[in-house]
Amino acid sequence: MKTLTGKALAAAIRERTQAEAASGPQPRLAVVVATADEASLWYVRSIAKAAAGVGIVCDVVDLGPEAAPEQITATLARLSADDHVHGVLLQTPLPAGASAQELATAIDPRKDVDGANPLSLGRLAAGLPAFPPATAAAVMALLDHYEVALEGRRAVVVGRSTVVGKPLAHLLLDRHATVTVCHSRTRDLAAVTAQGEVLVAAAGRAGLIGAAHVAPGAVVIDVGTNPTADGGLTGDVDAEAVAETAGALTPVPGGVGPVTTALLLRHTARAANLP
Amino acid sequence: MKTLTGKALAAAIRERTQAEAASGPQPRLAVVVATADEASLWYVRSIAKAAAGVGIVCDVVDLGPEAAPEQITATLARLSADDHVHGVLLQTPLPAGASAQELATAIDPRKDVDGANPLSLGRLAAGLPAFPPATAAAVMALLDHYEVALEGRRAVVVGRSTVVGKPLAHLLLDRHATVTVCHSRTRDLAAVTAQGEVLVAAAGRAGLIGAAHVAPGAVVIDVGTNPTADGGLTGDVDAEAVAETAGALTPVPGGVGPVTTALLLRHTARAANLP
Repeated sequence: MKTLTGKALAAAIRERTQAEAASGPQPRLAVVVATADEASLWYVRSIAKAAAGVGIVCDVVDLGPEAAPEQITATLARLSADDHVHGVLLQTPLPAGASAQELATAIDPRKDVDGANPLSLGRLAAGLPAFPPATAAAVMALLDHYEVALEGRRAVVVGRSTVVGKPLAHLLLDRHATVTVCHSRTRDLAAVTAQGEVLVAAAGRAGLIGAAHVAPGAVVIDVGTNPTADGGLTGDVDAEAVAETAGALTPVPGGVGPVTTALLLRHTARAANLP
Repeated sequence: MKTLTGKALAAAIRERTQAEAASGPQPRLAVVVATADEASLWYVRSIAKAAAGVGIVCDVVDLGPEAAPEQITATLARLSADDHVHGVLLQTPLPAGASAQELATAIDPRKDVDGANPLSLGRLAAGLPAFPPATAAAVMALLDHYEVALEGRRAVVVGRSTVVGKPLAHLLLDRHATVTVCHSRTRDLAAVTAQGEVLVAAAGRAGLIGAAHVAPGAVVIDVGTNPTADGGLTGDVDAEAVAETAGALTPVPGGVGPVTTALLLRHTARAANLP
């Protein structure tokens, strides 16, 4: 089994992004945070650090874990209207009772660098210009980087979230794959996933995908980032179990993750250069 | 094989719509036309007649087959801003060079009774309130009317259009089906479609679906409306060929079609009653 690491690809994307960022007004990304979740805050710090590395300013707007939805909406609207801000990201988790989809409608689609506004998803589905969610875009970038053919092939996505599974289904359809979306209610998951020549695991359940779920030679992309007891991360795929069956697998960490962050920055640089 | 006609369901929807239409301001639907296509104009006349039958005013705004995209956009925006208009429909085909998806962004989502604005599709996909395209809604209404179970079952959609295949995939996912979308680039279409316990044909190719494409006992919904040489309509499914295999099939005409028109009117009545 081939291991499809994301580090070299992420570095290449960051390098091009740095050049793009230097070619116009300095890009500025605003990350709106309303949580005390440590993993989430760690991720925001890693975005800020990566942004600095490519010449993008990253403002973290921390509203605290008690922020009211109205306050979050107002902040997103204010940042969307601010000419000095080019990208707006709403970090999850959110306070209880707040809907990420509903709040994200306040993000200007031209600044929606993580494709969170339902309008971005709709435009993506309709084939109009839009920023896809960075994670979904990272899956496609990895498939392209490793020259995985998609046209006419069977792609199976496990997970139907608005941020990964659904937009990814549209991106794969655009590339002429035959796309199946599975989820927690799917009967006999292994029988369905074993039909995928390309299998994307984005369910958020550690070890969900084992040997029986994978077609011989399949390319498996692991989007899962599940916390482990020792403070690390593990994917949705049991890498050891599928090693004999899968043709290729992205590692966790070091696969989709770094590419996602790099693409979030690239989207921000592009947003800064929009006419 | 059971025949799943749409006429009784359509009549029931029209009846409830008539009551809804009478309960508030008289609903008004504006249909924007920019074509000389006879089939399209015939369909618009049939909508206008059906609207009158349930107490909905239908204005046909005919811009002629030479209308410029800017003129269509301006008309859609004007109707969207008109307090007396509750539903706005952009009829296809459009003049060469005009994109239905792009133009439909000018329709206020609250008046987008045929779910043509990409924002409506995105909201649908994100689980937010939105009008789905009437055709996609009609497929779901027929499945519900005939009490076809969806949760955990395999549904296969043939066709990936923005007006039918894609929104339908989201509606089926919402109902917890495992959904596969096929299209013209799908390899071995019959092998894929034969996995569907529910099979929806929305490819626009007469007779595409034959016996080999259908699982024994499958429920088959035929969305195709392909013109025949004698001026009639035929579906995407070869009804005679699948008669021994399919468990149930919607006829063309008389299946999805009448339910689609009835739902377009229901959406208009609902739009008129929006707070």
